[in-house]
Amino acid sequence: MEAPDVDFVASTMDLHLGGKIHVASSFPLTTRAQLSRAYTPGVAEVCRAIMRDPSIAFTHTMKSNTVAVVTDGTAVLGLGDIGPLAAEPVMAGKAMLFGEMGGVDAFPICLDTTDPDEIVRTVKLIAPVFGGINLEDISAPRCFEIEQRLDAELDIPVFHDDQHGTAVVVLAALTNALRLTGRDWAGLRVVILGAGAAGVACTRMLLAAGVRDVVVFDRTGSISAARTNLTSVKRSLAETTNPRGFAGDVAGALAGADVLVGVSGPGLVRREDLGAMAPDAIVLAMANPEPEIFPEQVTGTPVRVMGTGRSDYPNQVNNVLAFPGIFRGALDAGATTINGEMKIAAAWAIAGCVSDEELESGRIVPDVLDRRVPEAVAGAVAEAARRSGVTRRAHESRPGAG
Amino acid sequence: MEAPDVDFVASTMDLHLGGKIHVASSFPLTTRAQLSRAYTPGVAEVCRAIMRDPSIAFTHTMKSNTVAVVTDGTAVLGLGDIGPLAAEPVMAGKAMLFGEMGGVDAFPICLDTTDPDEIVRTVKLIAPVFGGINLEDISAPRCFEIEQRLDAELDIPVFHDDQHGTAVVVLAALTNALRLTGRDWAGLRVVILGAGAAGVACTRMLLAAGVRDVVVFDRTGSISAARTNLTSVKRSLAETTNPRGFAGDVAGALAGADVLVGVSGPGLVRREDLGAMAPDAIVLAMANPEPEIFPEQVTGTPVRVMGTGRSDYPNQVNNVLAFPGIFRGALDAGATTINGEMKIAAAWAIAGCVSDEELESGRIVPDVLDRRVPEAVAGAVAEAARRSGVTRRAHESRPGAG
Repeated sequence: MEAPDVDFVASTMDLHLGGKIHVASSFPLTTRAQLSRAYTPGVAEVCRAIMRDPSIAFTHTMKSNTVAVVTDGTAVLGLGDIGPLAAEPVMAGKAMLFGEMGGVDAFPICLDTTDPDEIVRTVKLIAPVFGGINLEDISAPRCFEIEQRLDAELDIPVFHDDQHGTAVVVLAALTNALRLTGRDWAGLRVVILGAGAAGVACTRMLLAAGVRDVVVFDRTGSISAARTNLTSVKRSLAETTNPRGFAGDVAGALAGADVLVGVSGPGLVRREDLGAMAPDAIVLAMANPEPEIFPEQVTGTPVRVMGTGRSDYPNQVNNVLAFPGIFRGALDAGATTINGEMKIAAAWAIAGCVSDEELESGRIVPDVLDRRVPEAVAGAVAEAARRSGVTRRAHESRPGAG
Repeated sequence: MEAPDVDFVASTMDLHLGGKIHVASSFPLTTRAQLSRAYTPGVAEVCRAIMRDPSIAFTHTMKSNTVAVVTDGTAVLGLGDIGPLAAEPVMAGKAMLFGEMGGVDAFPICLDTTDPDEIVRTVKLIAPVFGGINLEDISAPRCFEIEQRLDAELDIPVFHDDQHGTAVVVLAALTNALRLTGRDWAGLRVVILGAGAAGVACTRMLLAAGVRDVVVFDRTGSISAARTNLTSVKRSLAETTNPRGFAGDVAGALAGADVLVGVSGPGLVRREDLGAMAPDAIVLAMANPEPEIFPEQVTGTPVRVMGTGRSDYPNQVNNVLAFPGIFRGALDAGATTINGEMKIAAAWAIAGCVSDEELESGRIVPDVLDRRVPEAVAGAVAEAARRSGVTRRAHESRPGAG
């Protein structure tokens, strides 16, 4: 990666002075009349109302619209395990995007522990003021267990963005790439580089979409039933992917492949590896900030559609397209979880924001700052939540549900 | 207490719809240039800067100005143990006051546990994004241990407002009441009703100010060396107060007393109990929302100065006068704790906001919405922090300090 521009770094540091996010009140507290309602004695009436009916917390407190952006700082951007203090700028940036694109109040929670039990317990203990939990930049495989346990034990949506946000935008990008190139899911050969949070979630999402032939690579090589000492998550990948038992290197796996999804790190793919891909190949090189391979390197290969996570190239396949609208929709519907139906609805809504007229190899996803996207995603996600019966109302009306 | 007005309750509920506090960004994220600095790739430079020098978190992240308002919901207003969900409206109101009066970003953390170990551990785990911890409405005696441990184990200020905020405003009010009535601390006879968080802190503060004769009552009666089965905190009160070994009832203690501070509950003082107080007696009946005795009940008694916590009577002796300025000053100075010097400086600053011309029996404290108060308090607290050497800079320059 080239050295960052000095002026860019200086202006970035300046912009961060005093922090990027602040707490604002719904109304000013400048009169005694306001004070007596927002604070004592009036506030006691709201407390009493919540004691009588706890569901009022979901309408009359910050729980109605506030999401915790929770990290332990172990897998931040391309920086890795940088700890909770240094992770704040990323979480605050995420919180800004939640607000700007989704109208969601998001607040960074940077945890000074990497122990899964302690992370789960802490998030449960602070959950009362939050209407949702967005897990962020927690390293694999701990992130899988943490998300699973929190989702099971809390009555608010829990969403690990590195997994599902990435999977949703990859599904959206591939949906449109297939639309452009006239292929279907069942006939695809897909190679996924990276078996961390994003790789695992993308694989599961593509299998759910109907893909049959996926080969996933981790640092050791292709994941297959022949591998030993696999974590339970990778063991499960071995059982559901790689039907041909492929055991060669990345170049070998790419021979004849239609799709390469990179969620690993920079420089792991060479130009010559792409030469034997199938015609109209699709490459999503999503490592951030430096992709597995740069767009200018694919000219002269069979690659027709090329996407990265970066804003300075076409086809920015970035989670920003997904998470603000997904939580907006989940909060609007009063969802208690974010299930597969909601994620797939989000992906289709993102894909649907590119019209037939707009669709071309350099435009398979909408612009990350396009306001129509979170609106479309939120509507689709809320509808999917209601349809699949995971809203609080549906839950409460279920006999015996507690 | 009379039944609350129906319109007041309805408008209070309406005002709370959607929550009272929101997360705002320092700047909008509407261009790619902003996005590339606030989020990836630029944000990585700020992360790296913090990794190189963790003190940058205190200037370039939300830690610079953000305070957690932490409760477990066990001692909320006059409502008692209402739990974390129902406590949110009070904490959000507090957060509004922090912002409005102190320019401090305060965020409610309502904990779903009442175990002191777990509260301490959880607050430590979430501390990285916060520049201070305001403990609120945690019941005694757990609150003492929780505050002590957190203050010792964290490098940011920890302040239990029910204790110290109350003690500061009581000291301020009494300072001016003595100024008005021409008495000094050493000659006073003081009765304190309530030996919870506020009562203990007020007692300690008045002893530090030079008062020699304090009798403290808990639910059982006056606290003295003769009492058995006292908690360690009350045992310490027994050792430092009640020099005459008074063992009678409240009425008896008030005979000849100069000052009554009520931090207990409604209805614990009768008009006739006040009749035998010393001339120019001072009564601060601070139970909220219903005081120990109402101002209209003291006419015809020796009471010359009467204060409550309420906004609908003169002399509103409310913590709002103290906590926004105290944290503003602590954050401005980079204080690592809030020590006795800073609390006393805060009390004197509050008292100093009432000029000799303004001072009268109905005006011993400034108005709670007077913007000069937090400004004066912040300046005095920051100066006291620097003078007493509890700022991060002083700490870092001390040889061997780590």
